[in-house]
Parts: sequence; C-alpha cells; structure tokens
Amino acid sequence: MRRMWTPDTGRTSTSQDNAVHVVAVSNSGIDMDWHSVAALDDFFVNEHYRQVDAMDAILELYGSQTGNCTRSAIALEEAGLPYTVRLVDLPGGEHRRAGHLALNPAGKVPVLVEHRPGKPDFVLTQSNAIMLFAAERVPGRLLPHTERARATAYERFFFFLTDVIGPAHASFFLQNQGIADGAARLIERMITTLETADLYVETDEYMAGDAFSIADIAAFTIAASVETQVAWARLPNLRRWYEMVGSRPSVVRGQRAFDLS
Amino acid sequence: MRRMWTPDTGRTSTSQDNAVHVVAVSNSGIDMDWHSVAALDDFFVNEHYRQVDAMDAILELYGSQTGNCTRSAIALEEAGLPYTVRLVDLPGGEHRRAGHLALNPAGKVPVLVEHRPGKPDFVLTQSNAIMLFAAERVPGRLLPHTERARATAYERFFFFLTDVIGPAHASFFLQNQGIADGAARLIERMITTLETADLYVETDEYMAGDAFSIADIAAFTIAASVETQVAWARLPNLRRWYEMVGSRPSVVRGQRAFDLS
Repeated sequence: MRRMWTPDTGRTSTSQDNAVHVVAVSNSGIDMDWHSVAALDDFFVNEHYRQVDAMDAILELYGSQTGNCTRSAIALEEAGLPYTVRLVDLPGGEHRRAGHLALNPAGKVPVLVEHRPGKPDFVLTQSNAIMLFAAERVPGRLLPHTERARATAYERFFFFLTDVIGPAHASFFLQNQGIADGAARLIERMITTLETADLYVETDEYMAGDAFSIADIAAFTIAASVETQVAWARLPNLRRWYEMVGSRPSVVRGQRAFDLS
Repeated sequence: MRRMWTPDTGRTSTSQDNAVHVVAVSNSGIDMDWHSVAALDDFFVNEHYRQVDAMDAILELYGSQTGNCTRSAIALEEAGLPYTVRLVDLPGGEHRRAGHLALNPAGKVPVLVEHRPGKPDFVLTQSNAIMLFAAERVPGRLLPHTERARATAYERFFFFLTDVIGPAHASFFLQNQGIADGAARLIERMITTLETADLYVETDEYMAGDAFSIADIAAFTIAASVETQVAWARLPNLRRWYEMVGSRPSVVRGQRAFDLS
C-alpha cells in the first residue's frame, strides 16, 4: 500500500496496488486523476508528483547562525517541510572534526540529511541546492508554476546570489586575509548592487512578481546582514518589501532556527 | 491546431482541438498518452509537459565572448534548443547604449529573448537562469530526472558557481579597481577550490554522477579560463573529465558561439 499526497492541499489517499495515482488540483478545486501507472519509476514523469512518498521523510539541517544556514532554514520553513535543527559548533571547530567531515568533506555548513524508509540516507550540501530541493518538493510555494514566471524567479534569485551575496562572501574572505581595502570595496559594491533591487519591488510586491519565492529569501538574508548600511530613506519600495518579508512567520522562524541560546 | 513534441524523442504529432496531449515516453519506448486537457493553463501540472508548444519558440542569445555568455550558449547547445546569436560589442560600449539597456537595464550580457506566437516577448537575464530555463525545457538532458540525483547536480552546480566562479568574478572586479593583492588572493583560492573537484570525478564520470549536467558546464568554462594555472599533472581525474567535456560537440559549438571573427 502506498500513501498518496497532493502537495498543495496536503490531502492523502491510499492505494492497494503498486500504482501511483497522480492527482492534479485545478485552481477551481476540481481534482483530476492523471492516470494510474504501475512501476512509475520506469517512466519519464514529473518528479514533483513522485514525491507522494516524501511524507515519510525525516530531514535534519546541520548548521549554525550563518547566512547560508539561515537561507536554508527559511526555505524549509516556507516550504512547510518539517526538519530538525542540528547545531554545529563553528567557534568550537566542530565542522572540522570527523563527525561533520563524514557528512561534508569540505567542512562546511549547512548540510541537509534526509532519512527515508527503505532508502539510503541522502546528504545534500550547498545552501542554494537545499533551497531548490525544498522548492521542488512543494511546487508553487517557493517557485512559480509557470515556466516564464519561474525563469524570472531564477533570474532574480541568481542576481542576489552572484551579484550581491557572491561579493559579500569574497569580502568576508579578504577581511580574514587582512586585505581590508579589497574587502571594503567589495562590500561597497555589494550594497550599491543590492540597492538597485528597489526597482524589482517598485511595481511587484515580491522580488520576482506577485508571489514569494527563493529570490526573496536570498535577498532578505543578505539585506538583513547589512541592514544598518542600506540607504533605506531613499529606497521606499525596498523598505516596504524588507518589512513585509521580515514579518513573515516562516522567515522569522527560519532566522531563529539556529539561535538555540 | 497545436503541435505536440516529446523532448526525448523529438517526435511530433498534431491536434485539431485546444487540448494538449501530454505524451510520456517510457524507457522501453512505449508511448503513453497522459490525458487530453482543455484549458491546461488552469491546471497544476508539470511545466515540463507544457513545453509541447515550445517548438514554435524563437530564441535569441545576446552576448559576447565571456564566460557567462559561453555557459549560456553551451546550455542551449546541450539542450538542443535552436537559437540565434546576437553579438553585443562590449569593447565598443554597445551594452551601455539604449538598444541593449531596453533589454537589460543593468547593461549586462547575456540576455535571452524568446519570441513565441501569440505571446509577448520574454526577456531573461542572468546566465545561470538561462541555463536552468534550458534545462527545464528539455528534461533529463541537463539535469537528472530523479529528485536526489537532481539535487546532487544542483549541489555541484552551486559549488562551482559560488565557490569557484564567484571568487573569480570578485577577483576580476578588484583587478579593474587596481587592488592587485586582493585579486590575486581570490584567484589563488579559486584555483585551489576548483582543484578539489578532482574528487567528484574520481569515481563518477561527470561532476554530478554518470550523466552530463549543468554542473559540468559551470565547471568546464571556469576551468578553461584558468587552464594554464591548474595543476593537471597531479589531478588525473579532473584532467580526464576536462578532456572529455571539452571534446563534446555541443560544448565546442557553445564555446565558439560568440566567436564570429
């Protein structure tokens, strides 16, 4: 017997055979049975629907209070995927010890571990990969359904990732290397670029249109990290967006995920 | 009348009604009609199958001979999506003139423009968004079908994007700013990190398992940009992978896409 799950409604049904009943839900609330298919794994089908089994998954998020870990936590919160926080003691060097290196030889956080009955454990590193993993598991919550809207969400997501967060990380590295002028120049550029995002939310409510997406998560965490340095007074749209996203319960919970003090 | 297309086989069929016949192809070659649905846009369905209409799309890729543009071109080539190259004269400042700024106010390349009958033109910036757009349109070619394998492809893709290409871009920026020591330190770190990818291809053929993916595109273009600085002699796996990927016809074509001399 297999359990069936429709992500948007959370409704489940059961089946006595080995078939998977893929259920699509229309905007008008009409369910459509998209076929019963035996041995579904052999077929070329939408992986979104394959996650009917994912209800049994147990997720653990290893990390600490860093931007990358917080982004992953917010994505899991927004996706509504239950997870257990596993605090990694970075100041104590826990990420460099055997236990953590067995999960991630690069010695970095976050790391997501998925346990599922009858399957080997699955280990996923890279915060952005964790975000896409969460987004795909619950279609429509972190990425739009339609191709073009989703592509635009990717566009904005990568804008923050490569043009804003990237320089911030490089700056952090140079600061630790004692190259202060390089670090300062990169942060300056990063903030200038971040501020151009005011245009994205001038007409749209969110960073990639009228729905919350991974682009908002990427944008919010980096904006929060330089909150005192952003020229909010001349960026009314960005400010409205920042306050709106910052008050989302899932974002608040994600921000506090690794604050276990 | 609508034209139907099955990405994996390239087979087409036609329909006189407004229905979209979604056709899945099993590994054993058996076609399955996944329903005929009027007004499909109203339904929550796999966008992959919505691209049955995409054969009518005309794609233009604006860019120049840069790493970001080349990555986008290789992704389109590997996806088998026809596109027209539109050379943007960066040395001549064309990207700062009105024509290009109308496409991308940030004045950057690449820019992908999609023309489709009966739809407004769609403009997509950010090379990585273009890569995911291409990957989603032709499922299975640039990203694996199964959830975990795809998540791992994301993981490796983001490793190259944020840990290798990101520092390279920051280095390029600092070099232009006259901060040579910061630029050098970032490149040094970037190459060291790139070299750790030897482990990814020690057991696997490609960067994310046994199939080519967007991770290979990201890895290849950045490796090519520092080819003379990589310690190939002590990285036999990376070298094997580099030669294999570099000899793929689609990669060769993508590398030359903007070389119109």
